[in-house]
Amino acid sequence: MNIAFIGLGSMGKPMASNLLAAGQSLQVWNRNPLPAEELAALGARVCTTPRQAAAGADVVITMLVDDNATRAVLFDAGVLEAMTPGSVHVNMATISVALADELTGVHQARGLGYVAAPVLGRVDVAAAGKLNILAAGAAERVARIQPLLDIMGQKTWYYGEQPSQANAVKLAVNFCIGSAIETMAEGAALSRAHGVAAADFIELITTTLFAAPAYVGYGKLIAEEKYEFSGFKLALGLKDIRLALAAGESKNVPLPFASSMRDSLLEAVAHGDGDKEWAALARVAARRAGLE
Amino acid sequence: MNIAFIGLGSMGKPMASNLLAAGQSLQVWNRNPLPAEELAALGARVCTTPRQAAAGADVVITMLVDDNATRAVLFDAGVLEAMTPGSVHVNMATISVALADELTGVHQARGLGYVAAPVLGRVDVAAAGKLNILAAGAAERVARIQPLLDIMGQKTWYYGEQPSQANAVKLAVNFCIGSAIETMAEGAALSRAHGVAAADFIELITTTLFAAPAYVGYGKLIAEEKYEFSGFKLALGLKDIRLALAAGESKNVPLPFASSMRDSLLEAVAHGDGDKEWAALARVAARRAGLE
Amino acid sequence: MNIAFIGLGSMGKPMASNLLAAGQSLQVWNRNPLPAEELAALGARVCTTPRQAAAGADVVITMLVDDNATRAVLFDAGVLEAMTPGSVHVNMATISVALADELTGVHQARGLGYVAAPVLGRVDVAAAGKLNILAAGAAERVARIQPLLDIMGQKTWYYGEQPSQANAVKLAVNFCIGSAIETMAEGAALSRAHGVAAADFIELITTTLFAAPAYVGYGKLIAEEKYEFSGFKLALGLKDIRLALAAGESKNVPLPFASSMRDSLLEAVAHGDGDKEWAALARVAARRAGLE
Amino acid sequence: MNIAFIGLGSMGKPMASNLLAAGQSLQVWNRNPLPAEELAALGARVCTTPRQAAAGADVVITMLVDDNATRAVLFDAGVLEAMTPGSVHVNMATISVALADELTGVHQARGLGYVAAPVLGRVDVAAAGKLNILAAGAAERVARIQPLLDIMGQKTWYYGEQPSQANAVKLAVNFCIGSAIETMAEGAALSRAHGVAAADFIELITTTLFAAPAYVGYGKLIAEEKYEFSGFKLALGLKDIRLALAAGESKNVPLPFASSMRDSLLEAVAHGDGDKEWAALARVAARRAGLE
Repeated sequence: MNIAFIGLGSMGKPMASNLLAAGQSLQVWNRNPLPAEELAALGARVCTTPRQAAAGADVVITMLVDDNATRAVLFDAGVLEAMTPGSVHVNMATISVALADELTGVHQARGLGYVAAPVLGRVDVAAAGKLNILAAGAAERVARIQPLLDIMGQKTWYYGEQPSQANAVKLAVNFCIGSAIETMAEGAALSRAHGVAAADFIELITTTLFAAPAYVGYGKLIAEEKYEFSGFKLALGLKDIRLALAAGESKNVPLPFASSMRDSLLEAVAHGDGDKEWAALARVAARRAGLE
Repeated sequence: MNIAFIGLGSMGKPMASNLLAAGQSLQVWNRNPLPAEELAALGARVCTTPRQAAAGADVVITMLVDDNATRAVLFDAGVLEAMTPGSVHVNMATISVALADELTGVHQARGLGYVAAPVLGRVDVAAAGKLNILAAGAAERVARIQPLLDIMGQKTWYYGEQPSQANAVKLAVNFCIGSAIETMAEGAALSRAHGVAAADFIELITTTLFAAPAYVGYGKLIAEEKYEFSGFKLALGLKDIRLALAAGESKNVPLPFASSMRDSLLEAVAHGDGDKEWAALARVAARRAGLE
Repeated sequence: MNIAFIGLGSMGKPMASNLLAAGQSLQVWNRNPLPAEELAALGARVCTTPRQAAAGADVVITMLVDDNATRAVLFDAGVLEAMTPGSVHVNMATISVALADELTGVHQARGLGYVAAPVLGRVDVAAAGKLNILAAGAAERVARIQPLLDIMGQKTWYYGEQPSQANAVKLAVNFCIGSAIETMAEGAALSRAHGVAAADFIELITTTLFAAPAYVGYGKLIAEEKYEFSGFKLALGLKDIRLALAAGESKNVPLPFASSMRDSLLEAVAHGDGDKEWAALARVAARRAGLE
Repeated sequence: MNIAFIGLGSMGKPMASNLLAAGQSLQVWNRNPLPAEELAALGARVCTTPRQAAAGADVVITMLVDDNATRAVLFDAGVLEAMTPGSVHVNMATISVALADELTGVHQARGLGYVAAPVLGRVDVAAAGKLNILAAGAAERVARIQPLLDIMGQKTWYYGEQPSQANAVKLAVNFCIGSAIETMAEGAALSRAHGVAAADFIELITTTLFAAPAYVGYGKLIAEEKYEFSGFKLALGLKDIRLALAAGESKNVPLPFASSMRDSLLEAVAHGDGDKEWAALARVAARRAGLE
């Protein structure tokens, strides 16, 4: 099976590495050529354009940063044109439901398969091949690429025939993460206002009722007020909440927590924290209460 | 040490049982006499009035349902009058910060000690003596009753000299629980609107990023749409969110998630779900999206 | 008809003056004696206690600042005890629905009449006898005091037999005022962020679609950023929004705008603007957008 | 001066009629040819394509329903290509700030002038030539077309050199309208829950503090529960709130009332009221309170 892997960012590179390590044959492309060259050492064939990478591939995997980057590669850079009829495009990025639906139609019109397979897990999880993969698309297509997904992830969750269903679930999960951050932010502000350190409140909840990765990870940053970028930028969180709101809007689903969070994230960006950690949302709650 | 235990509801009874089982001497009172009689079999001395239970006790523990019940027992039923100067009142209920502050002053004026010690954990946790106890009050007073807390709980978290600090933290935790429910409610509505069953979404998050008791427990109810009362009434959740908002208001802390949740809880009550499980909040999100 | 007028603040004094000017016989009391002495010059009999003022009166009018002041005068200072059975208490203050309902019961039990008659209009309107009076209570009682209301106001709006109905409407109106302020605050922030002065935006709306007193008055303050106290304190606005939320809560009415506004008002207080004009709410919207 | 008028909907037709009645020479186009034919009787030259209408015109006025319709006419239908360098495009529709900024650049690159001139006023106001026109763009260009604006409107408000500034203000005004509707909706729900008819509450405010067109007009619909389409569809209101939120987002301006309203509007659409009057928002507040 010839595989193209396009997009070797912090997530894409370890995912592609795992495929290579498992003996798969990869043609790779990345805007910045450095990560591609590193993969060459592992046996990847480095291409100079996305189109070249996609040409002749049975499976084209893309892992690009957002809707715009995905559009640029697929349409402007000619990946769709280069793909062979009958081949499958596996889009593992977090994109909008609207783009997923659009791409579903575009692929179908060209005789190409389209599978959405966004992932849960950060860079270290990707490196360990332990991602949770949310897949949707024609069942037989997902089955065909399942061996590849099994190399990159610990489990594949199948969400239906319509590819955008996986994107909707992914956005719902990211909404949950943002909501957990805002919840800790408000709870910490309430505690602090009553003379209890944020760290003491966070320790309580993250070792009892909320002893789960999302709370433990972001809670630690809030407790230690470590808001310099270390993993997930607040501005990207805002992007995901915006996509969740759009996914809701397309089906008339009010999401009051997401709406409230969007306002708080905008306030964070307005105060210069867009490039800090998503957990910097806690500064908004504190500032509103006059605690900064 | 003579101990009075007042309030033998679903939480109070197993807590008092554990004290008795550990060899403590208890005078007990409950509005409904049945639970008190059950404890008599374990060696408790059953009193016919709260005043009688409090008389002569070194430590008076109260575990009453809300502010009003607490006021009724302390003031109207004469517990404060009956208490011996130098004795300590340990209030383990979830009450308002305002009442905690008021009681702190009232006890001080009477030469009585006041310790706030609200708990985390449901009935089964109380029965197992595994509660997390949030304590605040004069450090030496908390130290004096620590052996009792160690019988009822697995861990005591100390939050400062001002008793209401423990109440503030307890309310912040309950706010987090409500927030988790609303988050799952919105996420499930978003998923359902895109054709993914609520149960499939809930299973994903509660086995990965949100694999923690609060999400697992309430998530299961939402996934199975089991909203008949089984543990914690929605109307009680509304009461706690109201107290969290009041605790915020007293220190000028805006809590936008709590405000939003309060409106959703009122809507649930307006639609007849006040006596159902707190998780019935998910019906509000679904109804708003036209999914019911 | 013997009339007692209790509470001669910025609103009460001109209202009582108008009654005196119309030839009514008044016994007056105020906590601060100065305004009472001024009314003595117009023929009022100044009393040294609220009880003395109420004794023997056919109609007792109270115009006190809030629930607490009203309770203090009625219960602690003995006004209810002093009132003659068959006499009527006309409460013209903005109080809670809950207190109105409580007072309705208390008066009935004592054989006293209770009419709620809160007013719309500021000091100058009161001085001109042009208030809009929102009345509720037994129809024949309202009819009996109608001549007095006609002296103080330009129109009486009757809202039903239950006195608290007038209070609910009054709180709904004050909610509308706060909502207009928040609306202008957000609209002005949006305009400013796009390079249009707040004053230019405010002028547009207040001379066209929103050419009404509430917008014109508060809009002018926002346009000129005149937030020093000149008429209605932000903290009082917060009190009224709190009462509106409570009035909603008692009937399970979600009020999302009121909830949102409460958070903004708390933020204003947290930043030191509680004693400024209600219009200072606009500073919150601006600060959130990084415009200050 | 040769004028092209493209878009003869409910607003565009009376605006174009007024230009014709004032002796201006117009080339017109409309997707549905009927309104164009009516204007032929008044002297308009009817064109069969937008491109034909724009060719040779000194001023091209467009009044199209939304961003998509505007794009379709300008780009796909060749209006921009057909316009003569040095001519001016006056866009009087309510479009997004983002599209206004994009069009500003596109026109500049082609040597065309671009003026934004969205309007306040409904069909009857347009027919009377009494619109309020919000204009922005190069001052000399606005001055050049001022005689045309004076025919269509009673007043032109100038908001700066950047055309999108007028769009931002227009969206801020429509946000105010929506906010007034939601405010009355909540106030009416609160009143009704306390036994006061919505009509009685609406009459009070719309004849006193809120005696302005926006409240009087929409208040009447709420009071009479007349929600069948008669002037402005709820779905269009949702579109405008979405554009206001986007205008805020582009400058990091949180708009909590707009966010809250968006959720309520989505709920209305989810319950089948998208094609009803914007005032049908009041049904949402009532339903949430269990009043329907």
